[in-house]
Amino acid sequence: MEGVDHLAHERKTAQFDVEAMKVVWAGSKHELDLSDRMARLVASDPVFRKDNRTMLDRKELFKNTLKKAAHAWKRLHELRLTEEEAGKMRFFIDEPAYVDLHWGMFVPAIKGQGTEEQQKKWLPLAYKMQIIGCYAQTELGHGSNVQGLETTATFDPNTDEFIIHSPTLTSSKWWPGGLGKVSTHAVVYARLITDGKDYGIHGFIVQLRSLDDHSPLPGITVGDIGDKFGSGAYNSMDNGVLRFDHVRIPRDQLLMRLSQVTREGKYVQSDVPRQLLYGTMVFVRQTIVADASRALSRASCIATRYSAVRRQFGAQDGGPETAVLDYKTQQNRLFPLIASAYAFRFVGEWLKSLYTDVTHRLQANDFSTLAEAHACTAGLKSLTTSVTADGIEECRKLCGGHGYLSSSGLPELFAVYIPACTYEGDNVVLLLQVARFLMKTVSQLTTGKKPVGTTAYMGNIEHLMQCRCAVKTADDWLNPYAIQEAFEARAVRMAVNCAQNVSKAPSQEEGFFSLSADLVEAAVAHCQLIVVTKFIEKVQRGNVGDGVKEQLQVLCNIYALNLLHKHLGDFLVTGTITPKQGALVSEQLRSLYSKLRPNAVALVDAFNYTDHYLGSVLGRYDGNVYPALYEQAWKDPLNESDVPDGYAEYLRPVLKQQVRLARL
Amino acid sequence: MEGVDHLAHERKTAQFDVEAMKVVWAGSKHELDLSDRMARLVASDPVFRKDNRTMLDRKELFKNTLKKAAHAWKRLHELRLTEEEAGKMRFFIDEPAYVDLHWGMFVPAIKGQGTEEQQKKWLPLAYKMQIIGCYAQTELGHGSNVQGLETTATFDPNTDEFIIHSPTLTSSKWWPGGLGKVSTHAVVYARLITDGKDYGIHGFIVQLRSLDDHSPLPGITVGDIGDKFGSGAYNSMDNGVLRFDHVRIPRDQLLMRLSQVTREGKYVQSDVPRQLLYGTMVFVRQTIVADASRALSRASCIATRYSAVRRQFGAQDGGPETAVLDYKTQQNRLFPLIASAYAFRFVGEWLKSLYTDVTHRLQANDFSTLAEAHACTAGLKSLTTSVTADGIEECRKLCGGHGYLSSSGLPELFAVYIPACTYEGDNVVLLLQVARFLMKTVSQLTTGKKPVGTTAYMGNIEHLMQCRCAVKTADDWLNPYAIQEAFEARAVRMAVNCAQNVSKAPSQEEGFFSLSADLVEAAVAHCQLIVVTKFIEKVQRGNVGDGVKEQLQVLCNIYALNLLHKHLGDFLVTGTITPKQGALVSEQLRSLYSKLRPNAVALVDAFNYTDHYLGSVLGRYDGNVYPALYEQAWKDPLNESDVPDGYAEYLRPVLKQQVRLARL
Repeated sequence: MEGVDHLAHERKTAQFDVEAMKVVWAGSKHELDLSDRMARLVASDPVFRKDNRTMLDRKELFKNTLKKAAHAWKRLHELRLTEEEAGKMRFFIDEPAYVDLHWGMFVPAIKGQGTEEQQKKWLPLAYKMQIIGCYAQTELGHGSNVQGLETTATFDPNTDEFIIHSPTLTSSKWWPGGLGKVSTHAVVYARLITDGKDYGIHGFIVQLRSLDDHSPLPGITVGDIGDKFGSGAYNSMDNGVLRFDHVRIPRDQLLMRLSQVTREGKYVQSDVPRQLLYGTMVFVRQTIVADASRALSRASCIATRYSAVRRQFGAQDGGPETAVLDYKTQQNRLFPLIASAYAFRFVGEWLKSLYTDVTHRLQANDFSTLAEAHACTAGLKSLTTSVTADGIEECRKLCGGHGYLSSSGLPELFAVYIPACTYEGDNVVLLLQVARFLMKTVSQLTTGKKPVGTTAYMGNIEHLMQCRCAVKTADDWLNPYAIQEAFEARAVRMAVNCAQNVSKAPSQEEGFFSLSADLVEAAVAHCQLIVVTKFIEKVQRGNVGDGVKEQLQVLCNIYALNLLHKHLGDFLVTGTITPKQGALVSEQLRSLYSKLRPNAVALVDAFNYTDHYLGSVLGRYDGNVYPALYEQAWKDPLNESDVPDGYAEYLRPVLKQQVRLARL
Repeated sequence: MEGVDHLAHERKTAQFDVEAMKVVWAGSKHELDLSDRMARLVASDPVFRKDNRTMLDRKELFKNTLKKAAHAWKRLHELRLTEEEAGKMRFFIDEPAYVDLHWGMFVPAIKGQGTEEQQKKWLPLAYKMQIIGCYAQTELGHGSNVQGLETTATFDPNTDEFIIHSPTLTSSKWWPGGLGKVSTHAVVYARLITDGKDYGIHGFIVQLRSLDDHSPLPGITVGDIGDKFGSGAYNSMDNGVLRFDHVRIPRDQLLMRLSQVTREGKYVQSDVPRQLLYGTMVFVRQTIVADASRALSRASCIATRYSAVRRQFGAQDGGPETAVLDYKTQQNRLFPLIASAYAFRFVGEWLKSLYTDVTHRLQANDFSTLAEAHACTAGLKSLTTSVTADGIEECRKLCGGHGYLSSSGLPELFAVYIPACTYEGDNVVLLLQVARFLMKTVSQLTTGKKPVGTTAYMGNIEHLMQCRCAVKTADDWLNPYAIQEAFEARAVRMAVNCAQNVSKAPSQEEGFFSLSADLVEAAVAHCQLIVVTKFIEKVQRGNVGDGVKEQLQVLCNIYALNLLHKHLGDFLVTGTITPKQGALVSEQLRSLYSKLRPNAVALVDAFNYTDHYLGSVLGRYDGNVYPALYEQAWKDPLNESDVPDGYAEYLRPVLKQQVRLARL
């Protein structure tokens, strides 16, 4: 199949410089080169093959994941990779593993919540992986409500120890990745009790397994929580269950940056501001937004390439059928997803800069923007992960029947992605947090307090409450100011409307409770506005490369106008636009889809994904889909023999009318 | 755990007779008893256990499925089950298997397309399962467009045979269930060529495997197409690939009811009307709608029971936290799904009567309602399967993190259900067919041709184009006439709007092509109207049982008003309702959710599903969720040992800093 390029004709019609767009997507030439180098390194190493993942049983899959992790550790030492390179390498290995939690949660928890002394003791061990750690917070009965956790850590002044204990079945730690079979240590969250008083949830470093033979330590029951969604997917991870039976740890394994317990058992808070913890949340959630753009771009790359290869109907005079990518019904489902992938990429990039800004402010004891930044990242985490999860499944459907095959890569991508809607804050719970922040912002408008950051537009409330959209023709919808004003007016009107309804309730809490569905819709409107705004800003900053800016303009308009069409009810019910203007949106969208069509394949090429990373016979760069599907089929274990296992016992007796006599 | 009922308090609050509702759901007392008996029979037989499905590898799973099918065949003979009972038994075994295709496609194809003589020869063999058949239509390169199939059946007058051949890779048969490893025969669809002329697609009975040893016959390459979405799920089915290398079959294995080839090779059409084939489509699609209501009710039953058990936040004074079912954001996602399950159940029931009606008319050579019935079933198939697929995933999300565990049953239910969106007509392709029918109906309104059946409302076009919704208060939205008129006006206005836009295009075909996205939306509006109408009719027919009618009324209103809220843009842009009336919909929905709340668990109890059929630790009848989750976890193969396979090779070297020396 070497040298074939069934998509060459699609690539020829591109009206922009794909190499320049690759740089825009990657963020910089440096990022592009780094990703490219690491992606190829992983793709060329047979240990990192992925195409057999869905055929392995759980134990084989898990063992293979341990192998990949060890091999990666070996390679990164051999090649003396930088931390940045090692991170990229893990990303392209593309397999959930205990290392994600060790580097992504255990180490940062010690860094963020440990004292300098604690960091000095534990971090070198963790950096060298002489210990492997996880993050044990969620319990069987308690997820979103961290304050409801039941595990206890009771201080015993007689021995200067904490006694970690699981008092109920529902207090069993449940879900932590890397816990089930691998971690030697964990940061365990438990209620700190000293002198009979419960001081709430605190983090403790607890050793779980012997460093000699890996067996669980006395008093510790630990195991895997069982099979999860999909074949392959997250089953390479040992999400775990953990119970403590009065396990004793030294007092100094309480993470003590924020609060300590003295030798006498006195609880003392340090003067380190609690707000620092929010900084970490902002960081974690911005990485989740970045992941969303990667997952959605990956799915839309597969669907776009396959849609250009797949032909159906429309043959005339025995000629080839029409590529499904040419159908408007395909375009109006797929193109907004490509546009969303770009939109999320850029809002993710901006979030990264927001995090830097927040960090600098925190260091200067400036907490003025923290609440807004926290609400903004919570909302964007929710919005981007929900859209991405649905978008991956939509891409699978856009690939028709073949999208249902594991070899299309889309089932596993979906199964491995969807936990993002639940972890680090359930998406609906997060939107309610955003809504509360919006209600607070609205209520403070009259006090003269100026809204900051992504809520700054609310300062313009008088204009936004009564402005009228000036759009008269379909082309007027290409005006970014018209778009932005419409999104701002819709968001502020929905928020104000909610605030008014809440104020009618007997109490604010009752109002929040009974109107929570409307509050969620108002929060979504606000979050969509942020993404639209950041996309418009990105386009206006002007990018190098022939035609790149024009393409981003088209994508930005598709992103915004498709949302406008989808949420037309919001815009009409708030009087933001008229029904006529709504109809013009559809007209303009049709024209935008036609503009995007010749660039579709090139726009997904710009993600610069290797065939290894895509992991899809449908998404192959060369478009040579059918031979690949055919070859992959024969690798299934069922095809090891012509006559299947079980024929003699369970098929032959049926066919030979001997089933009554058979022992089944 | 015997005797526990954590949901007893929920069942006490029900305001209706659950047993009476069970009869309504089942359709009749007879249906309820039949289902109940068969469900218990299956649940009590250890051969039919399902809880290990996701832990089996592909070969084990497949072999186990063969075992279940043989065991079922044995049991139904031992118990002398009727055809009706046998069908129910297969349904409750709840595992995709070759028998589905044998009974559901192979036998009906021979019945529908075979001559009496052919039926006499083949059906007895099939009924006794002395041969096992499948339905080989779809090809690697051709799905929706049946006319594009490439397999050829060329008549050879010298030997009086057809030569079945796969001329290209893309002509390989691909997807047929039961084909890969089991079927001895297939109905193969191929282009009939005689005397050098191509007469298009016809069905042929072709033997694939030896009845002696099950090996593929000469010239036949057959195998499984490989792993599909999810663990367990559809991987119990041997969806197959099949290639022919000039395979010869006797001339009389062309299915000859509609057309024949004479001994001399002359192609002759019979006088049997082609429309009969549409009757079969109506039949198949109404069963798919029935399946949708079962799948959605199953998912919503799991999510409802678990939401009543799961508590999160809101604890006051150390009391229990709030059941997540009490949160409005949970209710406004879940309750419309319960309502949709009921709605689909009733529209499915009506479709069954429609099929009977169509059959009677066909027998009397009356084809007047066939096109409408065909469009109606196509549209309802598309609507109900799309909503159900999304609804199952929504139910999974409503179960939070634990919904992601295979033991919740929801991942497998999703994976096994979603092909319904693609098979028997891709959902978007079907909606375009509906839209074409609607455009035709609209264009004929001026000619005085009276629209029939589900399009009859269009005869009222003059009123519907200019009527104004009379709703003034939230309670006015409880009026079924107001609801129905709003849905009728919206549907007809969207259709007329599309028709006008299509007529502006240079040609009708170009108009259809460029406006297809809008046409799909108009088709959805029409299909939603049908479901709403049939639900209203069902409620008005009045049902027995204390409080049953009141509950159905609430469900019907939730179904309709939730759709109205979701598609508010449609209703506003067509001027069907005003923004103020739109806001009243939200208000009424809040009140309806409160009415449904005390009945929620009882309403899903009315589905009468056994714990075996639900297959979910979260959906248990007794609500005893946490111990069940905990016990199930330990059954995972990874938990067979404390120290995992691979520790010595891949973990110990990392921990002991010896990875550089290790052979990986």
